[in-house]
Amino acid sequence: MPSSLAHLATILVSCPDRPGLVAALAQLLYGHGANIIDSDQHTDTLEGKFFQRIRCDLVHLHTDRTSLERGLREVAERFAMDLQVRYASHRKRVAIFVSRYDHCLYDLLLRHRSGELECEIAIVVSNHTELEPVARQFGIAFHHVPVAPESRHTAEARQVELLAEHAVDLVVLARYMQILSPAFTERYVARIINIHHSFLPAFAGGRPYHQASQRGVKLIGATAHYATPDLDDGPIIEQGVVACSHRDSVDDLVRKGRDLERVVLARAVRWHLDDRILVYSNKTVVFA
Amino acid sequence: MPSSLAHLATILVSCPDRPGLVAALAQLLYGHGANIIDSDQHTDTLEGKFFQRIRCDLVHLHTDRTSLERGLREVAERFAMDLQVRYASHRKRVAIFVSRYDHCLYDLLLRHRSGELECEIAIVVSNHTELEPVARQFGIAFHHVPVAPESRHTAEARQVELLAEHAVDLVVLARYMQILSPAFTERYVARIINIHHSFLPAFAGGRPYHQASQRGVKLIGATAHYATPDLDDGPIIEQGVVACSHRDSVDDLVRKGRDLERVVLARAVRWHLDDRILVYSNKTVVFA
Amino acid sequence: MPSSLAHLATILVSCPDRPGLVAALAQLLYGHGANIIDSDQHTDTLEGKFFQRIRCDLVHLHTDRTSLERGLREVAERFAMDLQVRYASHRKRVAIFVSRYDHCLYDLLLRHRSGELECEIAIVVSNHTELEPVARQFGIAFHHVPVAPESRHTAEARQVELLAEHAVDLVVLARYMQILSPAFTERYVARIINIHHSFLPAFAGGRPYHQASQRGVKLIGATAHYATPDLDDGPIIEQGVVACSHRDSVDDLVRKGRDLERVVLARAVRWHLDDRILVYSNKTVVFA
Amino acid sequence: MPSSLAHLATILVSCPDRPGLVAALAQLLYGHGANIIDSDQHTDTLEGKFFQRIRCDLVHLHTDRTSLERGLREVAERFAMDLQVRYASHRKRVAIFVSRYDHCLYDLLLRHRSGELECEIAIVVSNHTELEPVARQFGIAFHHVPVAPESRHTAEARQVELLAEHAVDLVVLARYMQILSPAFTERYVARIINIHHSFLPAFAGGRPYHQASQRGVKLIGATAHYATPDLDDGPIIEQGVVACSHRDSVDDLVRKGRDLERVVLARAVRWHLDDRILVYSNKTVVFA
Repeated sequence: MPSSLAHLATILVSCPDRPGLVAALAQLLYGHGANIIDSDQHTDTLEGKFFQRIRCDLVHLHTDRTSLERGLREVAERFAMDLQVRYASHRKRVAIFVSRYDHCLYDLLLRHRSGELECEIAIVVSNHTELEPVARQFGIAFHHVPVAPESRHTAEARQVELLAEHAVDLVVLARYMQILSPAFTERYVARIINIHHSFLPAFAGGRPYHQASQRGVKLIGATAHYATPDLDDGPIIEQGVVACSHRDSVDDLVRKGRDLERVVLARAVRWHLDDRILVYSNKTVVFA
Repeated sequence: MPSSLAHLATILVSCPDRPGLVAALAQLLYGHGANIIDSDQHTDTLEGKFFQRIRCDLVHLHTDRTSLERGLREVAERFAMDLQVRYASHRKRVAIFVSRYDHCLYDLLLRHRSGELECEIAIVVSNHTELEPVARQFGIAFHHVPVAPESRHTAEARQVELLAEHAVDLVVLARYMQILSPAFTERYVARIINIHHSFLPAFAGGRPYHQASQRGVKLIGATAHYATPDLDDGPIIEQGVVACSHRDSVDDLVRKGRDLERVVLARAVRWHLDDRILVYSNKTVVFA
Repeated sequence: MPSSLAHLATILVSCPDRPGLVAALAQLLYGHGANIIDSDQHTDTLEGKFFQRIRCDLVHLHTDRTSLERGLREVAERFAMDLQVRYASHRKRVAIFVSRYDHCLYDLLLRHRSGELECEIAIVVSNHTELEPVARQFGIAFHHVPVAPESRHTAEARQVELLAEHAVDLVVLARYMQILSPAFTERYVARIINIHHSFLPAFAGGRPYHQASQRGVKLIGATAHYATPDLDDGPIIEQGVVACSHRDSVDDLVRKGRDLERVVLARAVRWHLDDRILVYSNKTVVFA
Repeated sequence: MPSSLAHLATILVSCPDRPGLVAALAQLLYGHGANIIDSDQHTDTLEGKFFQRIRCDLVHLHTDRTSLERGLREVAERFAMDLQVRYASHRKRVAIFVSRYDHCLYDLLLRHRSGELECEIAIVVSNHTELEPVARQFGIAFHHVPVAPESRHTAEARQVELLAEHAVDLVVLARYMQILSPAFTERYVARIINIHHSFLPAFAGGRPYHQASQRGVKLIGATAHYATPDLDDGPIIEQGVVACSHRDSVDDLVRKGRDLERVVLARAVRWHLDDRILVYSNKTVVFA
């Protein structure tokens, strides 16, 4: 991490909309010597909800983090805010779940290596062993957790154990081809990002490229979303599409989709790592 | 029409794939003095079907159109081809159906005036009267055919009459907000183009922008398709999308969608007028 | 204007970056009862410059606009801010300059009529008479100001007169094919928006579609920018591109470009009208 | 190679346009038992030039390749065609030139491994040693050819030697940061593909992302082109763009550009390998 990042903090706020919110936070931060370097806000006027992301530099803090957090909690209580503070000095720890496809895994590892993703990639977990060499090449621990219909429960228990052991903050399903149980997704709310290879809600479920070919669409898509107990129905973070035509066989769609999947997934992961995403009403606010 | 276009003919072919198809047609055309100026073909290897579009210039025809067509019919029979010949000298006659939204209507009329659409716009038909002045401005006959639940049958009878009277080749539903009966759509197979304001098959049915807002998608779309008895399920001709975010209210989606709808619809209409579209298995081959 | 808009004000700020800016403004606005409904900011860390756009609702103002503006001026002086306040109750007055192409003119008039553009379109000015009927149709005054090489000076004098007479805030060059003098562009700094039919800085100058065809590019573009004395070199507001290929003649590029030009121009005009654009170092900050 | 590909041949034709071209080739191929499975053609009416790409299946050839080629040569002479035949059974041999950036190299190697690129990657050549481990990982021979101002001539001699030794058909400059001499580019006309990190002809030359940032453009681009003696001025094969804004630092542009570069380069390489590109008048016809 560049030293310039070490003193950054990000504050994420959601609450009922009312006057004075912005001023109260700005004033408090100023009082503590925290300099706002970026701020973005949104009001959902229909639902009367307010959202804000504030990035501030704490290098000239007059007080300390404890005192700052106490102040923030007071403001939060006054305005019924759901308020979170995240420090850049804590790099999030990521687990990547994969099966046999390697394109998303390579993509994330290469982006990480080139400095695009501010995180530690703690572990790669797979129900197969094919991608172990890829993880090893990049110096990442690989864990094989086989999953069979009758052993799903045991497998998830082992996965949960691994996530705890490695203090994982975020799970990225990089074309992981197993369905996660509600118990699992509920344990990591808004902390599991999945890439679905269609423009959801079109072609939810299995074999979306086959579905797309069958229906004769002229664009195929990919969708990154937080995993929830309802399969393919979680809050959408990012989507992309690419043109296709009658000339594209299912294999061509798969090939075109690979490019899309990795770009869409990487963007979602990056935004999550930068604390740019707030979830409400099964939707996302992305302060991109 | 520029005189250079007056001698053009377009031949559309679909048939079971087998060797010799391309040579047989090329040879026949050459023999008659028809010069191939553009040719595009496609083989659906899964279904074993062959498709071709040949554009040729008949200005130096040694024989005549009757003789050429007889020759083409012989080739067609030999190869079990479904073969159609369309002459540019017959400009297609178009009816535009509208309700109250004017953006697609204006768009088509302006494109027509600027020479983008090779056709005659014969009539504008509407279940309302608001857009009559727009049609008049462009010198197009306007027909008000009111539609009420109990009068739908009568209304369609009147529409069919109008289409026959004006020798209409193509009906464009330019945000026409009434559902057409199966009897109507079956009468004009692959000759009614509808614009649906979503990325089908996502958000079929009513109020797609509301559905999109509700689901929190990050792209909205528009789809031009041939109308069939199954609502929103006809062969897709063209699709487009535009990015949206949490900042976009339903009104914003409607506004962004307007730009998309007119571009996507215009493209589909243009391809149809240029005889670039073949339909099979509820899909389209578009030789764009 | 919906009554909900009548009480909105937009504050645009640029100044050297330093701590306390955000808090000072937020606190002042809160003190006056102005509710911040949207706020966006940007720091150019290289140049050490800070930019902010604040949209606030004045309906519950405790004081009055005079008092609020006095307060804002005090803050502005303290922080060496360039600060402007714009009230939504003052709808900007727009002049559209055209020559013979009608697509951008129609597009702006239709968007205005559908409520997309919050402004009064005061006049249409042209060096030709062809588009007079279009302006008339939409009930807009049309002024013919012929321009010949020897009369350019007189023509501009007449244009300036018209702009003054109609209290015009913004001039939109909607494919106006005359070059404006430095004197003219300097009189309306950041208040003349031009659409150039290429992806600037590629193909500046005349006949960009011919240049693009000649060079064999695979994308063509359009650029909306503020006009400056340096032709085609003003601050860029928005750009778009569309794919092209060897199949596209110059006429095809012109046709594809038309769609692009109107969308790109409309977006730039809309952002300007919404006070979303700040100019510095011959670049723009667009709080879109 | 799937056995289905082993019998494919691609015929590329360019010649002055005249009647009978298409029929002559179709007839000849049919006569030899070569089945046309795909055909695309283009006429540049301004220059009076005709281009065609024919893909045919030779599995049921009545004669043999020698006899077929003799027939093709006769047709070619009759119509003054520049005609080339390429057999899929000869997989093209590719050399990838790199310096220190790894993203394009990884991308090509991964696509090759996943079967997207029909070729042999014969060697990786670099003026640095950093990327040797990447080449090794994928089992590709790596050659370090240092280049210093005074040794450029020697370095190129060594490169030419390597290309000859490995029977290389195509050189891909995957962010290779050295300028090639005219002698080198003229030796491999239309067989060296370069990726330039801008939307050419904008920002030719060095440091295009810095130039783009300086000019304040709202889109950045990448261009794949054949290398010619005129730097950054060769025939363009493919271009792409991605949106950017005032928020993007040069580093952000570099990051966004990486995604673009690899997609645009890969597409160009794929088309070249599939014999889809014809060059004329410093432009390309891409039968994509």
